[in-house]
Amino acid sequence: MIDFSDIESAYNTLKLVAHKTPLLSSRIFNEMNGNDLYFKAENFQRIGAFKFRGAYNKIASLANEERKRGVIAHSSGNHGQGVALACKLFGIRAVIVMPHNSAASKVEATKGYGAEVIFCGLSTDDREKTTQGLIDKHGYTLVHPYNDEKLIAGQGTVGREIFQEITELDYLFVPIGGGGLISGCAIAAKHLSPKTKVIGVETEGANDCYQSFRQKKLIKLPLVNTIADGMRTLSVGTLNFEIIMKYVDDVITIKDEDIYPMMKFFLERMKILVEPTGAVAPAAVMKNVLGLNGKKCCAVISGGNVDANVLKQIL
Amino acid sequence: MIDFSDIESAYNTLKLVAHKTPLLSSRIFNEMNGNDLYFKAENFQRIGAFKFRGAYNKIASLANEERKRGVIAHSSGNHGQGVALACKLFGIRAVIVMPHNSAASKVEATKGYGAEVIFCGLSTDDREKTTQGLIDKHGYTLVHPYNDEKLIAGQGTVGREIFQEITELDYLFVPIGGGGLISGCAIAAKHLSPKTKVIGVETEGANDCYQSFRQKKLIKLPLVNTIADGMRTLSVGTLNFEIIMKYVDDVITIKDEDIYPMMKFFLERMKILVEPTGAVAPAAVMKNVLGLNGKKCCAVISGGNVDANVLKQIL
Repeated sequence: MIDFSDIESAYNTLKLVAHKTPLLSSRIFNEMNGNDLYFKAENFQRIGAFKFRGAYNKIASLANEERKRGVIAHSSGNHGQGVALACKLFGIRAVIVMPHNSAASKVEATKGYGAEVIFCGLSTDDREKTTQGLIDKHGYTLVHPYNDEKLIAGQGTVGREIFQEITELDYLFVPIGGGGLISGCAIAAKHLSPKTKVIGVETEGANDCYQSFRQKKLIKLPLVNTIADGMRTLSVGTLNFEIIMKYVDDVITIKDEDIYPMMKFFLERMKILVEPTGAVAPAAVMKNVLGLNGKKCCAVISGGNVDANVLKQIL
Repeated sequence: MIDFSDIESAYNTLKLVAHKTPLLSSRIFNEMNGNDLYFKAENFQRIGAFKFRGAYNKIASLANEERKRGVIAHSSGNHGQGVALACKLFGIRAVIVMPHNSAASKVEATKGYGAEVIFCGLSTDDREKTTQGLIDKHGYTLVHPYNDEKLIAGQGTVGREIFQEITELDYLFVPIGGGGLISGCAIAAKHLSPKTKVIGVETEGANDCYQSFRQKKLIKLPLVNTIADGMRTLSVGTLNFEIIMKYVDDVITIKDEDIYPMMKFFLERMKILVEPTGAVAPAAVMKNVLGLNGKKCCAVISGGNVDANVLKQIL
């Protein structure tokens, strides 16, 4: 299992290329909520989400031979863009496998960072076959979206930055998709601020980790149903689960219907754009799921890449 | 005429209540533009616009007698909210006179900061009569939206903060409505960084200051037509004009049609919400009206209070 030294090393790798994103706060939110709240704004990260951190740290770790052959990832969203930009910065070929029904805006954004996009069918099977076929043919290195130590260490730099700025934090709320972000942040938290409770947040329609955490075994859901597109993973990774069981204090859920009001609040009151998945941890704080009062809490805004149609719906 | 010491004094008055707003930058924008660009994000200021600064500094300067009687302002937008919040913080009565067709959201926001809202007719005449009637009856002190030394000094703290962070700035672009923001910023600029060129920006449909600057006399337009609602003043104030003629290097204009693309860019690429007037100075930089290359430029984003319908149109 990785430890804080891996995060520290990722931090040094990233410090000249990733943004040190701001910690935002809102007087109105604090007054409404009764706690002292901070939001780690990874929507301001390069590519608009924390995913750049892990992807860059992973690609920085590749051997020359691997770099020459190029890199592959499957993603219809932020992970693909993170890998694409990281590869561009290293001058490495990036191939991103995307379902053929991916939003045109996501395809364009991924291509915009210089990646080659290959379309695949909609099933997991089809995606894996397409990806494996390309690996077999070209020798590409696969960059997994969450079940990877270098990736986890990169995402953990989010936590490192938070504790660099806030002392005596009572609670840290982190969204859980595949578990990369929370596993990295939990390692950072327990090293830098052992008293801080680390709380994972999922939506009810994608509560695999909530179930896994309670049953103490890795549960894989047959299907998920949530507007938080970054949470549509059927289970967290094995490496992630191990770290979560060791360092995370609790996993809670919110309802999908709490997401849009949170996004609207961020837009109207704080003037920032937050994507549905990015609003999940803040919504758990806003709804005060844990019934806290007078505590110092930080929630991670994981990203800000919102489809224009989704945004219109919110308004 | 006020000088930098007045701004310094406003800065001390404001430092514990106003936000020190961030200076944002975007790699993509820099690459597209060929200059090194910074944006002073007053959309993150309290009430969502720089107007809080001037209003607070003005109200802080009132005598006890004036405070007891209360304050009045006419505004359908950010100035009203700035005065309302400043009065709330001082525990002073605030009366805001608004045209009866003001957007419900603006009325609610102003009331939300604790002000009493009085409606008036749409003409300047009607508004002035209503306001004067209330002043005669209750002895309220009028807080003018731009033609006031304390107000100008407050707005000038925007400039002071910019030069605290950026050295050797070549150009500072500031939007011009009534001229409060630019006159304060120009005084700060010429004191802290005399080599920096200060450029005022208006829209073509509200180019009173552009004309005044060229003709060297204060021009009042018969009417204005622009989507930048903060620029719908027929002329700048007399105090503002005097400072502008002394310290501002040029006044330029952009077209209304350049505003929405700039707002869209801010939202999609930088994940921040900027109001039409707030996008005017950045748009002058984005369109590179002055044909600059390799320069260090800063544009002030004056605010972020966007009507939901306007935002839908942009998307």
